[in-house]
Amino acid sequence: MTGEETVARRLDGKVVGASIREALGPRIAAFSGATGRPPGLGIVLAGNDGGSEIYVRNKVKACDELGMLADLRRFSETASVDEVLDCVRRFNEADEIDGILVQSPLPSGMGRDAERRVFGAIDPDKDVDGFHAVNVGRLVQREPGLAPCTPSGIVEMLDQYEIPIEGRQAVVIGRSDIVGKPMAMLLLHRSATVTICHSRTVDLPEVAAVADILVAAIGRPGFVNRDFVKPGATVIDVGTTYVSDRDKVVALFGADSPRLEVLERRGRTVVGDVHPEVEEIAGALTPVPGGVGPLTISMLLSNTVRAAELRRARSDVGER
Amino acid sequence: MTGEETVARRLDGKVVGASIREALGPRIAAFSGATGRPPGLGIVLAGNDGGSEIYVRNKVKACDELGMLADLRRFSETASVDEVLDCVRRFNEADEIDGILVQSPLPSGMGRDAERRVFGAIDPDKDVDGFHAVNVGRLVQREPGLAPCTPSGIVEMLDQYEIPIEGRQAVVIGRSDIVGKPMAMLLLHRSATVTICHSRTVDLPEVAAVADILVAAIGRPGFVNRDFVKPGATVIDVGTTYVSDRDKVVALFGADSPRLEVLERRGRTVVGDVHPEVEEIAGALTPVPGGVGPLTISMLLSNTVRAAELRRARSDVGER
Repeated sequence: MTGEETVARRLDGKVVGASIREALGPRIAAFSGATGRPPGLGIVLAGNDGGSEIYVRNKVKACDELGMLADLRRFSETASVDEVLDCVRRFNEADEIDGILVQSPLPSGMGRDAERRVFGAIDPDKDVDGFHAVNVGRLVQREPGLAPCTPSGIVEMLDQYEIPIEGRQAVVIGRSDIVGKPMAMLLLHRSATVTICHSRTVDLPEVAAVADILVAAIGRPGFVNRDFVKPGATVIDVGTTYVSDRDKVVALFGADSPRLEVLERRGRTVVGDVHPEVEEIAGALTPVPGGVGPLTISMLLSNTVRAAELRRARSDVGER
Repeated sequence: MTGEETVARRLDGKVVGASIREALGPRIAAFSGATGRPPGLGIVLAGNDGGSEIYVRNKVKACDELGMLADLRRFSETASVDEVLDCVRRFNEADEIDGILVQSPLPSGMGRDAERRVFGAIDPDKDVDGFHAVNVGRLVQREPGLAPCTPSGIVEMLDQYEIPIEGRQAVVIGRSDIVGKPMAMLLLHRSATVTICHSRTVDLPEVAAVADILVAAIGRPGFVNRDFVKPGATVIDVGTTYVSDRDKVVALFGADSPRLEVLERRGRTVVGDVHPEVEEIAGALTPVPGGVGPLTISMLLSNTVRAAELRRARSDVGER
């Protein structure tokens, strides 16, 4: 890039995440003051996945820092689905647990159907991932409930950077249950005109290039290039693919990129769905890493506090 | 119109509705044969709304014709919400009732919150309108469940007329829980590229005019004019507004339209969201009346049979 070119404004997930956590402080204090206990997150970790270990450690640490309870239950690689289901049921019944998180993936030995069964067993009122059908329905119908962390975090980020949503054209690439579909619903409820694209979309770059807000959530590193982006658009990159192939990294970032150093040091580097060249055309852009990723834990904590508040409100009006 | 102009193919809801009912015959026979009872629809009708009387009468008649059970319970204009809720709970528990329909609107004396409370009390497995949060969630996640009648009927109609959906651009105008949002989801799951527009959409005609399949569900008579329609597009008109103003009818249909006769005879005529001039530019079009409307009862019957089959399958595997 030359000095003359415009570079997209960087939307910093760490800054937004920190601000989300800061706003939770008084709500946690109010809840603890009123109930005599902090909001509590029950975490299930099964097996020995290295990535899961790190994610869970970070989640426990984040709870500790905010004065929330984190109750971590570990299961071995060879544990049965029934053991995990029992644990989920105990969390469902435990009054001090407001949110339940089952770290994905479950060990493959538990069978293909294990995640669906375990996620489906979580009490919807404690489903801080927002995956349960009831919460999906509540989200679509705009009833109080728990929305998936990543899309909620993205809306929070747009708000904090004062990027307008109402009346804007938003295009979501990807139709997953975890990101694409809930993202489309949240943007729709904020009165964007929303288009959902996917692998069967014809002329995808042309469709994407109408977007004022473009969300890429397909898991194809560097797929969204400048042809997909209207100049000045806000581009949100949800992709996090680990790339180990040096040629691929050079092709995306150039032969003198600091990425190559990361690659050599760690054996891999995390790459988003958005091609680096988009930085020269977008108005604002979330980097990978450091964009959407850091929002997720903050939104998990936020959902846990919200679940605690909603459960308390429901028990106050005698609905439970 | 001159003889030289192309006129849109007419998508006939009566024909499609009849074909949906015909296909239900063997399923109803199989269910009745296996269980010793026909699929059953419990209907709640409260108050004296003239339109509701007609709708309910047609629903009961349609059940009778197909050999299904229709159990109609009537409540007076001054009945309490609790009486209606009791009836819904009895239907929930009754084994011979597979689907429950509460005719909207409930009497205004029951309070603003009555419909939300009553619809929310229906067992999701018997919710043949597909309004319950669990069914909305199942629809979004593509789990087996009950989808709202109007959008399901529209997909059925597109299929019967062999109008391709996959890879096509679909635009839905309107974001209601009953039509707009479920319609978008159903088209998305059939691999259309889907855009949802609404009152806050900027340049609505321009956005709509990319559509291969355009669904209008906003309740504004004649609003969607030729500027909204790409030549050759399939246009689905969900609007049903009763218009009594003669000038409005003349403005829409012309001074020599047979509509004026209807207006004089009945004091009103039903008008869709799509302007009559669209007939000259669309490739295919659902008329109002006679398009989407006649599909609704058929899809209600279809959902009741589906609910009966799903309940039976669940009780077979011991999930209930």
